Amino acid sequence: MSRPKIRLFVDHPLGPGQTVPLSREQANYLFNVMRLSVGAEVAVFNGSEGEWRATVIEAGKRAGTLDCVEQIAPQQRPPDLWLLFAPIKKARTDFIVEKAVELGAARICPVQTDFTNAERIRQDRLQAHAVEAAEQCLGTYVPPVDDLRKLSDLLADWPEDRHLVFADESLLGARESLAAAPEAEKWAILIGPEGGFSPQERERLRALPFVTPISLGPRILRADTAAVAALTLWQSERGDWR
Amino acid sequence: MSRPKIRLFVDHPLGPGQTVPLSREQANYLFNVMRLSVGAEVAVFNGSEGEWRATVIEAGKRAGTLDCVEQIAPQQRPPDLWLLFAPIKKARTDFIVEKAVELGAARICPVQTDFTNAERIRQDRLQAHAVEAAEQCLGTYVPPVDDLRKLSDLLADWPEDRHLVFADESLLGARESLAAAPEAEKWAILIGPEGGFSPQERERLRALPFVTPISLGPRILRADTAAVAALTLWQSERGDWR
Repeated sequence: MSRPKIRLFVDHPLGPGQTVPLSREQANYLFNVMRLSVGAEVAVFNGSEGEWRATVIEAGKRAGTLDCVEQIAPQQRPPDLWLLFAPIKKARTDFIVEKAVELGAARICPVQTDFTNAERIRQDRLQAHAVEAAEQCLGTYVPPVDDLRKLSDLLADWPEDRHLVFADESLLGARESLAAAPEAEKWAILIGPEGGFSPQERERLRALPFVTPISLGPRILRADTAAVAALTLWQSERGDWR
Repeated sequence: MSRPKIRLFVDHPLGPGQTVPLSREQANYLFNVMRLSVGAEVAVFNGSEGEWRATVIEAGKRAGTLDCVEQIAPQQRPPDLWLLFAPIKKARTDFIVEKAVELGAARICPVQTDFTNAERIRQDRLQAHAVEAAEQCLGTYVPPVDDLRKLSDLLADWPEDRHLVFADESLLGARESLAAAPEAEKWAILIGPEGGFSPQERERLRALPFVTPISLGPRILRADTAAVAALTLWQSERGDWR
């Protein structure tokens, strides 16, 4: 039996014979947009119990119910890597969230730095974006997206067993710079805004015992490119691309 | 003296005292949008002679002239790496071109594969996009963007001294897989369309003496993510991020 083409994230327990109610948006998508009816198959995942084949047992205009049949993929869990980034323009912020899901970040933390323009974010919209990215890329894990926090506050009560890397343009040697970080179980990557970090932030970061500066090559990268490049570099050196 | 904020690509020789005519679009941008006038400073580069400080000596509504003052940055040249990719949706294709410029590809080659939807591309628009990416990211090199070609034709007269890598989902170990490629001076990365390569393409690629399959981790990546991840991996292992 082939894998169902449509994949849905549901905030509900999954198991053999488990019925799963659909949200209004999901019912609209399945029955009005995709024109599925009773008996059709979809794949569902809830972020903790793997991916399941499910059958439509009720199909209404504004509601519907699925019935879980069997697990078709195990639950994935990415390495314990947080991505901290300063929100930039809307499209590029959406992009960073999408790419963080695809590249296996465990948690997404928007941070306000000295040179960040954004005063607030739409956390619910970014979280929905993360769900959509997981649905489309065959992921079973959806990283939580935090509310915007000040970088200085986050650093003030940082868990010291979590190692933090940030891109420093003055360095050379991408792999070598990451190799200088200690062995650690828990990690975070910090990406600054387009204007970079302020001198004060840079100085503070360098002085912290749990921080290692890394290089992302000799060219100036946009913040969104830097996020993808840093996630790739980390996954290939320290994560699950090995 | 600080570096001028506005950077322009010009298709014209640069040198001390060299006058440089502006295109109609550039004159409009400088004098109508940015409201510069005679005496203002901009930075110019032509892709081969570095970056120069230049002064506005004529400012009209539809035309204008600059005078080159002094070189302020040397010409960059990225490693000899081509990026071959199958065009996807417009916004994501634009994105791949932008990221290829930022991450230091020497040439951008859109290719038509068995599962590529695009029949043609707007080469001029993609080239303009590459110029804009270089202007915004302080680059002095603009990779040429080729016209769309069939992958099969390109492989049929491939220069055998250029080593080609492509992402193969069945592999594990990103760095290890790239380490299996031989030493080479000239390189290319091939990224397939969202639907992947056809079985015939995959078989042909594997059989070619100048091709190495590489891994991009255990998750399914979109084509645009794969392009950025592969460029990052290559630059850090074989390129100028070392």
